[in-house]
Amino acid sequence: MAQNIYDNPDFFRGYCTLPRQTLGLAGAPEWPMVRRLIPDLAGKRIIDLGCGFGWTSRWMREQGAASVTGIDLSRNMIDRAIADTRDPAITYEIADLESVELPAAGFDFAFSALAFHYVADFARLIRAVHAALTPDSRLVFTIEHPIYMAATHPDWITDGDGRKSWPVNGYALEGERRTDWFAKGVVKYHRTLARTVNTLIASGFAIEALEEFAPTAEQIGETPALAEEVERPMMLLIRAHRT
Amino acid sequence: MAQNIYDNPDFFRGYCTLPRQTLGLAGAPEWPMVRRLIPDLAGKRIIDLGCGFGWTSRWMREQGAASVTGIDLSRNMIDRAIADTRDPAITYEIADLESVELPAAGFDFAFSALAFHYVADFARLIRAVHAALTPDSRLVFTIEHPIYMAATHPDWITDGDGRKSWPVNGYALEGERRTDWFAKGVVKYHRTLARTVNTLIASGFAIEALEEFAPTAEQIGETPALAEEVERPMMLLIRAHRT
Repeated sequence: MAQNIYDNPDFFRGYCTLPRQTLGLAGAPEWPMVRRLIPDLAGKRIIDLGCGFGWTSRWMREQGAASVTGIDLSRNMIDRAIADTRDPAITYEIADLESVELPAAGFDFAFSALAFHYVADFARLIRAVHAALTPDSRLVFTIEHPIYMAATHPDWITDGDGRKSWPVNGYALEGERRTDWFAKGVVKYHRTLARTVNTLIASGFAIEALEEFAPTAEQIGETPALAEEVERPMMLLIRAHRT
Repeated sequence: MAQNIYDNPDFFRGYCTLPRQTLGLAGAPEWPMVRRLIPDLAGKRIIDLGCGFGWTSRWMREQGAASVTGIDLSRNMIDRAIADTRDPAITYEIADLESVELPAAGFDFAFSALAFHYVADFARLIRAVHAALTPDSRLVFTIEHPIYMAATHPDWITDGDGRKSWPVNGYALEGERRTDWFAKGVVKYHRTLARTVNTLIASGFAIEALEEFAPTAEQIGETPALAEEVERPMMLLIRAHRT
């Protein structure tokens, strides 16, 4: 099973302080870009893969979804999602994306935010999502960008001119990456961009849009620290069509 | 028009010494990966966009293509391609990919190797290629990878642990990049990966495969210098389906 770092108390304490947890979608700078990828949700049955605190699950119901099933590996996450939700059409369950079983053609839209990079067997997951979707539906997901994830020590360095740069190394060497983020040894899985795209295609998805989050000038004006996201993409966003 | 660096004598002298020019396809380490993307060519009318010395134009005829039209901006390239070719079904012409006019539905396959990153207006080019292709045909092309192209000074640096790393900066800032490569101020155009993929989709192409060249262990055994291509991808390869 995937590492359950979100149930590590130190990690969870730190994680809860992130703007995207305290403010919800308004604290996620990539959200406007993600939102543009999300199709009309009216009447749809939705699976939210790695739902966390349920911010997006609740938003999707506000958009008219018939129902949302949010799954997450973490008991902390699911407990908080349940506590923050008053909506009988939203169901939360603990489940591991590494081995999750989903009802065949049980959903009309699949969403996932920043969860798939914790999964070792991406091909299995994508096959499972494909089988769980009805024909002519969409999968929209975000993951950490492989440019961001590849290096052994993913942290800013300066080039010969003193310019802030992001190091890339070991890009073609896919697999486990351990980094310290609120806790030591958080396990993620680096995949090349080619692997992500080709796995989707091999499972029967057509790529409809691919985005690499970068802030707008307005966003940088409001939050100057976002300027570094212009230097290298931290997040990859994909909309895929289950034909 | 695009910068015609290939007709700069210093540049051309240096360029002619590259293994991919002296040895042809056998000198291009990405060729086995490119070849796997190329569909059956029997009976096809082919456009080779940025044909250079014509190595691939000739190879495609050997695979049974009905005809090949090779275009290139450089007089040096076209003269050499003509001199090296004895095949009445291959035609070479000087043309600028920035403004090339192609016959409507005149081709059944389009190929381009390491040329599109010299073009400023990628959307115009892709629309022109789409209009020049027959339905249910393919475009296969290689370009310098945006990871490779983005930085102001694209050259190896070492991270805090002394690990060889490739710097990425200014990734979201698309446009001109000037580098010194056999000559000073060679002009190329950086585009994000998202831009490349979304431009193809917007023009009516479906992405069939995306590859990022990395050498095999066998290739590194034969040519140890290739090992650095594992650290960061230098080339992006795409097969797109003109539906």
